[in-house]
Amino acid sequence: MQENEVITSTSNTKIKETAKLQQKKYRNETGLFLLEGSKPIEEALCSGLKIKCLYTTEKHLSKFSGLNVKITLVTPSVLEKISTTDSMPEAVAVAQQLHCNINDIKKSKRLVLIENIKDAGNLGTLIRCACAFSMEAILLCGDTVDIYNPKVVRSTVGAMFKLPIIKTSIQEAKENFSSSKFIASVVNQKNVINPEKIDYSTPFVIMLGSEADGLTQEAIAAADIKTTIPISSKTESLNLGMAGSILFYISSR
Amino acid sequence: MQENEVITSTSNTKIKETAKLQQKKYRNETGLFLLEGSKPIEEALCSGLKIKCLYTTEKHLSKFSGLNVKITLVTPSVLEKISTTDSMPEAVAVAQQLHCNINDIKKSKRLVLIENIKDAGNLGTLIRCACAFSMEAILLCGDTVDIYNPKVVRSTVGAMFKLPIIKTSIQEAKENFSSSKFIASVVNQKNVINPEKIDYSTPFVIMLGSEADGLTQEAIAAADIKTTIPISSKTESLNLGMAGSILFYISSR
Repeated sequence: MQENEVITSTSNTKIKETAKLQQKKYRNETGLFLLEGSKPIEEALCSGLKIKCLYTTEKHLSKFSGLNVKITLVTPSVLEKISTTDSMPEAVAVAQQLHCNINDIKKSKRLVLIENIKDAGNLGTLIRCACAFSMEAILLCGDTVDIYNPKVVRSTVGAMFKLPIIKTSIQEAKENFSSSKFIASVVNQKNVINPEKIDYSTPFVIMLGSEADGLTQEAIAAADIKTTIPISSKTESLNLGMAGSILFYISSR
Repeated sequence: MQENEVITSTSNTKIKETAKLQQKKYRNETGLFLLEGSKPIEEALCSGLKIKCLYTTEKHLSKFSGLNVKITLVTPSVLEKISTTDSMPEAVAVAQQLHCNINDIKKSKRLVLIENIKDAGNLGTLIRCACAFSMEAILLCGDTVDIYNPKVVRSTVGAMFKLPIIKTSIQEAKENFSSSKFIASVVNQKNVINPEKIDYSTPFVIMLGSEADGLTQEAIAAADIKTTIPISSKTESLNLGMAGSILFYISSR
């Protein structure tokens, strides 16, 4: 579905409105977000997300013309204006945010809880990896980067549309998953268990804190088990993405 | 060791020369590179790297004045000029590159070979993780990002000074480590072995290719074993950093 118009001006109202979605404030107001590049667009469509419109250039039109999406042709400079990447994507789409409720995931047995994560790349990597190792949902607690931030969207490579991601609190998570084992990933703490020794056959929640500060005291107090991946004494710590990947991997074997 | 001068101008010759080290060409010409932030500077010093000079502002001077390093005070705008990070680091140092030879690591039993890796963040993460799981050296083959690129330096968080990193070729690697088992990490290939089933007690080389293209045909042909980390069918692949982390972890248990 292609419109006849070709937008050539970066001051076009529709383009200005679209570019505003680079900001969290406008994403929250509208419930919309940006998808950049053909891969995330395809993944979002396959996962049933509603795409309001897709902007592409004449050059890349054939790649998208088969999709059941409203296409608006723009010039390269217009596409550049609405995209956030260094190299211009083949297309940018405006999609409707998904909002899941904690009640929808009550039966999930393999959960991830992420607290106070500010780094978009780290969050994206964790979501991608959680999906790869069959985690069933992600709980985001505390002060966390917006999952519809373009960098998060890009770095999940579509994985964010494949498992529910829910904003909640430590307390609400504990109340809703009272029969799950809460496993805190910690560094430099006493009474830790090797992650290989944990039983992952019953419901559990793997808890990860920010790379700089780790989990808060409140989160650690809420944990049933503390775990640390054993590493060489030459290194101080793993980065959050690596630690998460390894814990999800171990829990999935 | 503090010099009396305070550099206030971004056009100062010394500052202009230092800022040039953000470019690979000048790093190659001079054999120098930039360390940004207190943590990498401390790690480099602890690992015996030679630091030619350290630039900091009045505000952060006390943090570095105890170090056995020549300190030059600069204004915040000058520090900003020589640094590459979004938020200004507390200090920037100029250090001497380390060059290791393949003959120095002939006895290494746990090696990583990385081919055609262009992403600085990915390379940094892999180096940090290789160090955490006691890999002994890294072989860089093909067209690879410069390890003294400021983003690589930052993302290794000091790990790059703790294990030898050597530029080589697949052929040279095979010749020098002819009794090691070459294990290629691949995606969507036949005759792969689960990484858990591999014996890591004898010398081995874990081979990783770029995230977009994987290992080259030449690299795969040089491998003794092909391996893939089993993942959910919902996801296409792991990112390179995650796949590497998990393989290093498995090999270290």
